[in-house]
Amino acid sequence: MEERSIFHCLSPLDHRYYLANRDLFDQLTAYLSEEASIQYCIKVEIALLKSHVNLSLQGRSDLLAALDTVEADISPAEVYAEEEKTQHNIRALVNVLKRKVPPETAPYVHLGATSVDILDTAQSMRIRDAVKKVILPTLLKAEEELVRLCSENAEVPQVGRTHGQHAVPITFGFAMAEYASRLGKSIIQINRLSSNLRGKIAGAVGSYNSTALLTSDPESFEAEILESLGLQSSETSTQMVEPEYLLRLLLEVNVAFGILANMADDLRHLQRSEINEVRELFKSDQVGSSTMPQKRNPWNSEHVKSLWKAFAPRVMTFFMDQISEHQRDLSNSASMRFISDYLAGFTAAAARSIKVLKSLHVNAPQMMKNIQSSGDLVLAEAAYILLAAAGESEAHEIIKQLTLRCEQEGISLADAIKANSKVSDLVTRSLKAVGLPEAVDFFSRQEQYRGIAVQKSRKIAERYSGIEALLKEEI
Amino acid sequence: MEERSIFHCLSPLDHRYYLANRDLFDQLTAYLSEEASIQYCIKVEIALLKSHVNLSLQGRSDLLAALDTVEADISPAEVYAEEEKTQHNIRALVNVLKRKVPPETAPYVHLGATSVDILDTAQSMRIRDAVKKVILPTLLKAEEELVRLCSENAEVPQVGRTHGQHAVPITFGFAMAEYASRLGKSIIQINRLSSNLRGKIAGAVGSYNSTALLTSDPESFEAEILESLGLQSSETSTQMVEPEYLLRLLLEVNVAFGILANMADDLRHLQRSEINEVRELFKSDQVGSSTMPQKRNPWNSEHVKSLWKAFAPRVMTFFMDQISEHQRDLSNSASMRFISDYLAGFTAAAARSIKVLKSLHVNAPQMMKNIQSSGDLVLAEAAYILLAAAGESEAHEIIKQLTLRCEQEGISLADAIKANSKVSDLVTRSLKAVGLPEAVDFFSRQEQYRGIAVQKSRKIAERYSGIEALLKEEI
Amino acid sequence: MEERSIFHCLSPLDHRYYLANRDLFDQLTAYLSEEASIQYCIKVEIALLKSHVNLSLQGRSDLLAALDTVEADISPAEVYAEEEKTQHNIRALVNVLKRKVPPETAPYVHLGATSVDILDTAQSMRIRDAVKKVILPTLLKAEEELVRLCSENAEVPQVGRTHGQHAVPITFGFAMAEYASRLGKSIIQINRLSSNLRGKIAGAVGSYNSTALLTSDPESFEAEILESLGLQSSETSTQMVEPEYLLRLLLEVNVAFGILANMADDLRHLQRSEINEVRELFKSDQVGSSTMPQKRNPWNSEHVKSLWKAFAPRVMTFFMDQISEHQRDLSNSASMRFISDYLAGFTAAAARSIKVLKSLHVNAPQMMKNIQSSGDLVLAEAAYILLAAAGESEAHEIIKQLTLRCEQEGISLADAIKANSKVSDLVTRSLKAVGLPEAVDFFSRQEQYRGIAVQKSRKIAERYSGIEALLKEEI
Amino acid sequence: MEERSIFHCLSPLDHRYYLANRDLFDQLTAYLSEEASIQYCIKVEIALLKSHVNLSLQGRSDLLAALDTVEADISPAEVYAEEEKTQHNIRALVNVLKRKVPPETAPYVHLGATSVDILDTAQSMRIRDAVKKVILPTLLKAEEELVRLCSENAEVPQVGRTHGQHAVPITFGFAMAEYASRLGKSIIQINRLSSNLRGKIAGAVGSYNSTALLTSDPESFEAEILESLGLQSSETSTQMVEPEYLLRLLLEVNVAFGILANMADDLRHLQRSEINEVRELFKSDQVGSSTMPQKRNPWNSEHVKSLWKAFAPRVMTFFMDQISEHQRDLSNSASMRFISDYLAGFTAAAARSIKVLKSLHVNAPQMMKNIQSSGDLVLAEAAYILLAAAGESEAHEIIKQLTLRCEQEGISLADAIKANSKVSDLVTRSLKAVGLPEAVDFFSRQEQYRGIAVQKSRKIAERYSGIEALLKEEI
Repeated sequence: MEERSIFHCLSPLDHRYYLANRDLFDQLTAYLSEEASIQYCIKVEIALLKSHVNLSLQGRSDLLAALDTVEADISPAEVYAEEEKTQHNIRALVNVLKRKVPPETAPYVHLGATSVDILDTAQSMRIRDAVKKVILPTLLKAEEELVRLCSENAEVPQVGRTHGQHAVPITFGFAMAEYASRLGKSIIQINRLSSNLRGKIAGAVGSYNSTALLTSDPESFEAEILESLGLQSSETSTQMVEPEYLLRLLLEVNVAFGILANMADDLRHLQRSEINEVRELFKSDQVGSSTMPQKRNPWNSEHVKSLWKAFAPRVMTFFMDQISEHQRDLSNSASMRFISDYLAGFTAAAARSIKVLKSLHVNAPQMMKNIQSSGDLVLAEAAYILLAAAGESEAHEIIKQLTLRCEQEGISLADAIKANSKVSDLVTRSLKAVGLPEAVDFFSRQEQYRGIAVQKSRKIAERYSGIEALLKEEI
Repeated sequence: MEERSIFHCLSPLDHRYYLANRDLFDQLTAYLSEEASIQYCIKVEIALLKSHVNLSLQGRSDLLAALDTVEADISPAEVYAEEEKTQHNIRALVNVLKRKVPPETAPYVHLGATSVDILDTAQSMRIRDAVKKVILPTLLKAEEELVRLCSENAEVPQVGRTHGQHAVPITFGFAMAEYASRLGKSIIQINRLSSNLRGKIAGAVGSYNSTALLTSDPESFEAEILESLGLQSSETSTQMVEPEYLLRLLLEVNVAFGILANMADDLRHLQRSEINEVRELFKSDQVGSSTMPQKRNPWNSEHVKSLWKAFAPRVMTFFMDQISEHQRDLSNSASMRFISDYLAGFTAAAARSIKVLKSLHVNAPQMMKNIQSSGDLVLAEAAYILLAAAGESEAHEIIKQLTLRCEQEGISLADAIKANSKVSDLVTRSLKAVGLPEAVDFFSRQEQYRGIAVQKSRKIAERYSGIEALLKEEI
Repeated sequence: MEERSIFHCLSPLDHRYYLANRDLFDQLTAYLSEEASIQYCIKVEIALLKSHVNLSLQGRSDLLAALDTVEADISPAEVYAEEEKTQHNIRALVNVLKRKVPPETAPYVHLGATSVDILDTAQSMRIRDAVKKVILPTLLKAEEELVRLCSENAEVPQVGRTHGQHAVPITFGFAMAEYASRLGKSIIQINRLSSNLRGKIAGAVGSYNSTALLTSDPESFEAEILESLGLQSSETSTQMVEPEYLLRLLLEVNVAFGILANMADDLRHLQRSEINEVRELFKSDQVGSSTMPQKRNPWNSEHVKSLWKAFAPRVMTFFMDQISEHQRDLSNSASMRFISDYLAGFTAAAARSIKVLKSLHVNAPQMMKNIQSSGDLVLAEAAYILLAAAGESEAHEIIKQLTLRCEQEGISLADAIKANSKVSDLVTRSLKAVGLPEAVDFFSRQEQYRGIAVQKSRKIAERYSGIEALLKEEI
Repeated sequence: MEERSIFHCLSPLDHRYYLANRDLFDQLTAYLSEEASIQYCIKVEIALLKSHVNLSLQGRSDLLAALDTVEADISPAEVYAEEEKTQHNIRALVNVLKRKVPPETAPYVHLGATSVDILDTAQSMRIRDAVKKVILPTLLKAEEELVRLCSENAEVPQVGRTHGQHAVPITFGFAMAEYASRLGKSIIQINRLSSNLRGKIAGAVGSYNSTALLTSDPESFEAEILESLGLQSSETSTQMVEPEYLLRLLLEVNVAFGILANMADDLRHLQRSEINEVRELFKSDQVGSSTMPQKRNPWNSEHVKSLWKAFAPRVMTFFMDQISEHQRDLSNSASMRFISDYLAGFTAAAARSIKVLKSLHVNAPQMMKNIQSSGDLVLAEAAYILLAAAGESEAHEIIKQLTLRCEQEGISLADAIKANSKVSDLVTRSLKAVGLPEAVDFFSRQEQYRGIAVQKSRKIAERYSGIEALLKEEI
């Protein structure tokens, strides 16, 4: 087999990101490399051939047993060498196979199938396996970290932000709960959709012309082969399996990608010098900048975002590949091959997310300091609600004017309220009505104005700590 | 209300495609226009206000009754006039509402909600209604036509094509079955996902800070309001409903869009001068070209494809809108508004597809002529299968050589086989084995080599003629 | 002409963003509305007809004069009414025209042209005019504001940031210079490319079949017509003008869109509560949040970013429209119409950028405070450079260790250096060598470590204050 | 250096398409691989170091000479090993370099530069070289084949098609002229834009803070280094070179990609069984289908289209990478690395296009047969023009009615005209007026109605056979 320096590869997936994710990519190689592609095609050809042995050669057990050893006996290089002659990848594989199988079975190799029967079925298997065996486990690890952060920080006060502005307090666990929930729901969908990829052994244009020459029930013939490979038949294939089974899975993967990117963006921004609420682990001998020795950059979060930018637009290719003229044109042949790149890029982003989450330093004191930096203005909403609840129709406007006064005069909202006896009385009345502390206490502990953030963090943490059970559910 | 000539509008959706789809777009207007947007926001505000009446004003029935009439009493222009002052659309609506509702309820208008509570909940309702009441009915009509074509043409022979080349015969019903099945499955998903859009009344950053000042169980308070609007609560909203509920619906709509585009492409190509197998209706006083009087163009199919090109890439916007910093930045505000355009563009494409399908002229004699134009070479596969089934390991290569001879010598495949007694004997033996006609008959009736195309057409037609029942199912 | 409430429109461009940009959109209407589309087609038809009068009717001045008044005499509604019959937009226009022009000229209306000759030529004119008369003036106003900010803030110290982390000091004028330069260069390209849109009067498939029946030099016939409309002929049209002339302009507009979005993002983040270096104007009666009375959101910057997300992905449509089978398929017909939407969306973003820039409050004291918040660690690079310049090969590592010490011990970098006599001596020697102040001064005035930021700000400001002269240049 | 089986690579660019384009990809490796990336960074570091030698070490020639040998002495693996420690790629390179250069120069390695100075400058060089040395030569070969086809087939009649329908005749050379012209113009732009990539040595945030500590004219210091590498300075870099120099080049490459895809689509469709006007070379031992031995598929054209679908959407990444917060965030770091993939994918498509064009079999007799298959109806336009030129205002409608009669009665247009003496007389009069043959001859030689298709083919062929001279021009 031809070997090359990885530094001669053109795709960063095969040098830089291979080195950065060696174990994970070695696992993916078993499903997504060219070698894997050929091996899975062999699996499908052998399954077909066994069905022929059953149909036409009395199911001879010696033949069936011999077929079990064929896969290990074929190298990709051998198939490629043959393809130089045929200029057709599957015909090349068939020629090689015919030289390896028991001679009685040789005429039955590939019989009744068209190339795409083999390729599409193998692809469904490969992607299903890559998702089930590598991608989902990786995502579940990220989910586990999110659940942990959610749970551990359920009560850690943080200011909630909208438009980058301080809004009202939450807890950091609550902020993480958003991602635990969104990613969790996406994991459940990815699991579901990867179980629903389909195969086909329906011949050249999907109408079973060839297998109908061999058996009176070609749909059952197909179903048996596919069942032995763990797949169901597609509902109406043409030369290809209808593209939507796979498309929906890839779209959901892109949904999960967007969730990771959003999380990465949040964590990047929380590491800004002025905010400084969390910090990615930075090893002591690591360099942040080649010229600014003090720099500690959120480079892992940035990397996740960057991979999203590189890969998310590729969904357009997946959508364009829905269009194939008549029973098929070949214009999706090259483009589909890059699904491997796409899945590898996504997996790298998920793995990097785990790294970020696992080592995330949460700076609770700074979070509190940031809440306090806005003084009690983050309680303007609470003041307005309490005032309105006491029957004041212009509550929002009244408090807005008070906040302007606070800004102009540099006083606290509590003081501004205290100075206005009507507002003060109504707010106090409302506080009493709902059993909250006196105004003076209420306005001095902004971080306690956080609704049910704590409870919600715990609820989500609990729900998704049981995600493996949820994988059986539908959402 | 300000009126303008539609010819002054900038978007083709509001002039040309409005005129081309007047009834349908008038229906969409009830859900997707700016007027509808404001009306649905009022519905949400009223539902919230009624819950406040129940919570704090003893559920007074006079107040509840009075609130039922408010919606009809507010015009978009009034809200826009107020927005000139506030520069904030929901605060403008709130101000207008407070002037219209019974004075006792005025302090409770919008109380506990943030703008996005109203906007996102209203949006989920509007899109759900647009899908359920306009888009799905339109798609179901397209599906009905596909099922009809599938059924009526189940036995009409057509050549199957791969790579634009004649492959092996199918029937035209079978070709349509592909689209009946693919579109049908997508309709079922669209229905499911539109039922799963969510609302929220969880306040500024999603942690129920404000409503927790008013009630000890703010999640139930939210659930009751949403239930009265036919929605469930989102699992973990921030300031916004998590984007994925809606995103998944929009992605599935784009999946359906791709299916329509693929169908349109097939029908366009079948209308090529040299192929001429189908024809869109062309009215007698219609003009095909302003300079070539003989032209009859497949302009409706082209239109569907063109709309797909215009709208399919907009999924990138939907994916980008997954990213909103912290509890929200506003950078999805403008972009989300164009979902209306997207849905209108899709609906126009679906409606145009119905027009194409409804009036499609199927030229069965030409289909037969096209099959015959390849002589019996479309049976090369059959010959190879029959030869291999008789135990000939080199069957594919042997038949390939015969087809080359056919081309060089201008003879039929049947004659080439007859001239080779070994091949001829084996083929004859196999034909007998599966109870097929003599070689001479078999090779003279190419169109009969079509596998189970007829049965499959009927099966799909039957399945999807019951699609309204299927709408309850999951696929 | 049919009038509708703008609140019944489906596209936000025709209600919300029309109202928000009324003057600007009224200007665009003259080029991009359906009415404009028809009017420009009339201009092209009249130009063609005049050339026929010159060619075949002795250039009769009475006829030429009569033709000048025709355009004003035709309403879009009239053309649409005719299209109901012909189902062909240009044939409809031709029929209407033939009823309006002097009878002797009626046979020559549209003669020799195909519809796309008229449509593509009119489109090139319309887009050229929209760009030259509305879009470029808008961009030039944005550029003027950038130049002003660049110039006024040339010396205002700000911390430079990479990865959201404090890096080394710059000035705010320098930060704005980036955008003045990038947008300026894009304006120059947009101007150049809009001058290079092309027309065609080359007939049905671009080979001048029809006009070659009327004149022996059909390319000159075409060139004369186009010249009267201010256009050149395309090099090799098929039925259409080659798509790339327009495509390149649209791509450059999208380049400018990205620059505006990047600037908007920067300004959004500088308004974060914790950073607070700039502030968009917020009117005193404006509302930031419907529930949080204290909020002042960077909503205009967010709006620019949001429009970018809505429109930037539409370049995929422009690229897909490069593909048209043979001499043309119609599948770009609908999609091209949405170029109007695209240009309107871009113009709205440019206008909103002007609003942001014009009223931008620059908080220089806070900028200084932010620099100082990192202590003298932002001078770590300077220390390393000075140390290395004195011949210390391990300078980067040494200073990195010192910065770690600073963090651990809470001391300043100046103190850490002072405590290390070897480092201290070398740094002092280097400072002397380049004529800089003593270390004690150098490290106490971080904001002075800003390279040539001031000079560069002024240089860019000067260059682009003369941008109208530059519009003649090539970059 | 680590070696791996290419069949273990994940990206098809590093296995399947490497094997299919071995020579070409080996050439690209010299510019686009990871090894190349490191080598070019070394070139930039050495150029910087030489300038330091000139500035601070009296330009010692022994040192300058020693530096010339350093590049050859460093392996990527060595740099990667160092990066394991630093977790920073450029700092790793710097550490390695410092061990290899003359000790006196070690303190000056990288001095004054930030990582991105090196990376962005190296990237501009690499991409410029890949374009100039591999991509442009490949495109010029494709252009040469187009010019040849255009020239050789200038007089070969073919029917022009719009909407897939027969329109009016052209020549096949004219059809190819479209692509020669469009691709030619794009080549000229690619050449121009690749010459305009820029470098920077402006330090951490682009304000020359560091180099201003070392020299009073840091812009000249930068310019000298870049000049030695064949580059100009960017106008206003931040930490990065402004993205638009490279972006515009990549967009133009995507423009060229669209042109190749359009051409591939045309050639695919001309190979349809029913049209059969051209044929890609198919080797005698090649296999078209694994099950249909007669198949000869247009797989190379399909491949080009498929690569376009895989790569064209990646422009969205390029546009997204315009946005980098403040003086830089790192979120374009990973995404930019995939520019190598993009350029390799494009190069593969261009190479495949050459293969298609070089071996294209033009079936002139079939082209003539296809023209004739529409009878003389393709002359309907000519009839209408001639009738109108004779003063008949209703000419289009009259001929349209005649074409309907032709279809209904199965007669020729010539006969239909002959049967209508008024039309017949006017047409005859017009034919005489322009010196054309009698009607009977005119209508029997449809292929002669082709305008100036022949002349135009020759003109374009001539223009672009001189494209290498044109590469100096601006279009």
